Amino acid sequence: MTLALLALASTLTFAQEAIFERRDQGSPHFNDDGTVTLSLRAPEAARVDVIGDCVENFHAQMTKEGDTWYYTTPVLLPELYNYRFYVNGVETLDLANIERSRDVRSFMSTFVVSNAEGDQGYLYANHLVPHGNMAQVWYDSPTLGMSRRMSIYTPAGYDKGKKYPVLYLLHGSGGDEEAWPTLGRTQQILDNLIALGRAEPMIVVMPNGNASDDASPLLSGMVKKENPKVTFEESFIDIIKYVESHYKVKKGARNTAISGLSMGGYHTYKVSNLHPGRFGYIGLFSAAISMDFENKTPMQEQIANDAVVSKQVADVFAARPQLYWIAIGKDDFDFLMNQNTSYRAYLDSHQYPYEYYESDGGHSWRNWRIYLSMFVPRLFKD
Amino acid sequence: MTLALLALASTLTFAQEAIFERRDQGSPHFNDDGTVTLSLRAPEAARVDVIGDCVENFHAQMTKEGDTWYYTTPVLLPELYNYRFYVNGVETLDLANIERSRDVRSFMSTFVVSNAEGDQGYLYANHLVPHGNMAQVWYDSPTLGMSRRMSIYTPAGYDKGKKYPVLYLLHGSGGDEEAWPTLGRTQQILDNLIALGRAEPMIVVMPNGNASDDASPLLSGMVKKENPKVTFEESFIDIIKYVESHYKVKKGARNTAISGLSMGGYHTYKVSNLHPGRFGYIGLFSAAISMDFENKTPMQEQIANDAVVSKQVADVFAARPQLYWIAIGKDDFDFLMNQNTSYRAYLDSHQYPYEYYESDGGHSWRNWRIYLSMFVPRLFKD
Repeated sequence: MTLALLALASTLTFAQEAIFERRDQGSPHFNDDGTVTLSLRAPEAARVDVIGDCVENFHAQMTKEGDTWYYTTPVLLPELYNYRFYVNGVETLDLANIERSRDVRSFMSTFVVSNAEGDQGYLYANHLVPHGNMAQVWYDSPTLGMSRRMSIYTPAGYDKGKKYPVLYLLHGSGGDEEAWPTLGRTQQILDNLIALGRAEPMIVVMPNGNASDDASPLLSGMVKKENPKVTFEESFIDIIKYVESHYKVKKGARNTAISGLSMGGYHTYKVSNLHPGRFGYIGLFSAAISMDFENKTPMQEQIANDAVVSKQVADVFAARPQLYWIAIGKDDFDFLMNQNTSYRAYLDSHQYPYEYYESDGGHSWRNWRIYLSMFVPRLFKD
Repeated sequence: MTLALLALASTLTFAQEAIFERRDQGSPHFNDDGTVTLSLRAPEAARVDVIGDCVENFHAQMTKEGDTWYYTTPVLLPELYNYRFYVNGVETLDLANIERSRDVRSFMSTFVVSNAEGDQGYLYANHLVPHGNMAQVWYDSPTLGMSRRMSIYTPAGYDKGKKYPVLYLLHGSGGDEEAWPTLGRTQQILDNLIALGRAEPMIVVMPNGNASDDASPLLSGMVKKENPKVTFEESFIDIIKYVESHYKVKKGARNTAISGLSMGGYHTYKVSNLHPGRFGYIGLFSAAISMDFENKTPMQEQIANDAVVSKQVADVFAARPQLYWIAIGKDDFDFLMNQNTSYRAYLDSHQYPYEYYESDGGHSWRNWRIYLSMFVPRLFKD
């Protein structure tokens, strides 16, 4: 758009809905050779950069042809990709691509590459398969003294009256109850894994893990309890009670799973410790095992020296969970890798059985989507 | 961000989640005098424009101070506002503001101004009031031969077992089942009107009005039925059946309302004509009365000359709806204003009772939010 047209366009935009206007969707363009071309019209820009996990070394300058700037990616493996443009250093998104996701306070344009049914990208895309429903529900938390929002996925066929097992799925620091449904592609992963016959139909409960908040900043009534006296993990029983009284739930450890990423991994660790025998499947994704990142004492010693926690962990394993799964990326933050390594040493020293998966990459949604798509097929098979 | 930092920042962004990073939220800044200052950091830009309904005449050039560009609005009345920046002519949003809304294929930054409880802006903002739940559910449409997605609001207290009346609320051309929940602020308007005691608790059903699609482009499995043989309005019975069999619904005309904007107003007109006596409350918001925009015959004559339609309209009014409400903006498209004027002349000529509200403004979400907040308090009071 030329600057001269701005005033006209803006008047049209605000005086009337542009009910006949359709935007060109030229970007991203999927090329036959497996590369993807991203483009942005910016006639007056001196320089346009693109950053993204689809870009070689995460960053490239784009090339101008006519009024439009282009970047063509390397051949991309099946995955979900994120990117963003900088026009003379100012951030913008791909104006031709409506697929965007919010991560805490920042936005990225996204697209999915999938080459075959069942590949990793396929799991993240929308297909003509039976769909589960997603709901954003408010539950009473007497423990925290507020009404709080969470997202709940119910599988296709849920309305037929059967009962279903439940996965509690927890987000990380800075996230909220919208993180797993959007960045985590929970709906797509669950719909597709169930349709492919790789996972059991299940309910997935995604609460807000910030004890001071009632909801995502987009829906929050701005309850702000500074230094709440009760932690999220202590309030978790309110969530279980709500779910088990409002949904058609199969109870018992063999029908109950919990997992979470980063801070949500810490919550998973703490909640499962507080309720030994309640969760038959426990998944720590890039988990903080302690939130005390400065403490130089290895987790192994911290737990050994803490009679309460070592008893909790003993009780968790005495109840013989079906699966205790720990996953982290090779390139994750050192302090988290150290905590996980030390925690595993503790589990090893007591011969507590767990499975460990060390992936490529670091502390990223790419890994958490992969971990979810690996963890979910392991659940509720017995 | 300087260009030199881009490579570093991009590596950090994609290798690791920025779990400790928080963005500055400097824009929008609400000033004590009732104006709002918008800002964007763009050191290298030669020019930054802002367009928006909070901007005088919709468009202004921003002023540079240091590395940042500023625009201060006039004193703003309580409302929800939209805006967008252009940096050297390239569109971007307010990077400090996470409130964004999608309208078909374009995005705007948004904010709400509210000065007192109960004012128009108050209705659109989040408050510490009892919240209803929102769900995105898939229903079988045997008539259209597909599974389709819709959004459903259930009021606070719905889980206590009582039955509720239902409002069917329809979007316009280019919209989808996410339009009313996002641009239309349905959740906020309903939560707040109910909490203020101005509206009865009700279920609000927001289907996808595009008969060729199963869902919003963000969730669609890409069913595309070109020229479907069945219209959306003919398939509407599938929606009613799903809602009445899956929700705790008070049935009967006095407990059933339908309204819609633009194309959704056309759908409201057609659906209510197909089911005389089913809807006790009918609301046409900036409605197309016919989708034949080129037809030069006034609606009044078209209906009079069509025995089927004139019988349908007669049957609708013979059933004595509690409220037949027609609203449109003074500055709406001429062809829509003409259709509405002519349709009202037809109703007048038959002494069919209706109420008419002519607002300022045109074919815009601002008007449709206002119409919803006027229509909802009229429902289900008898």
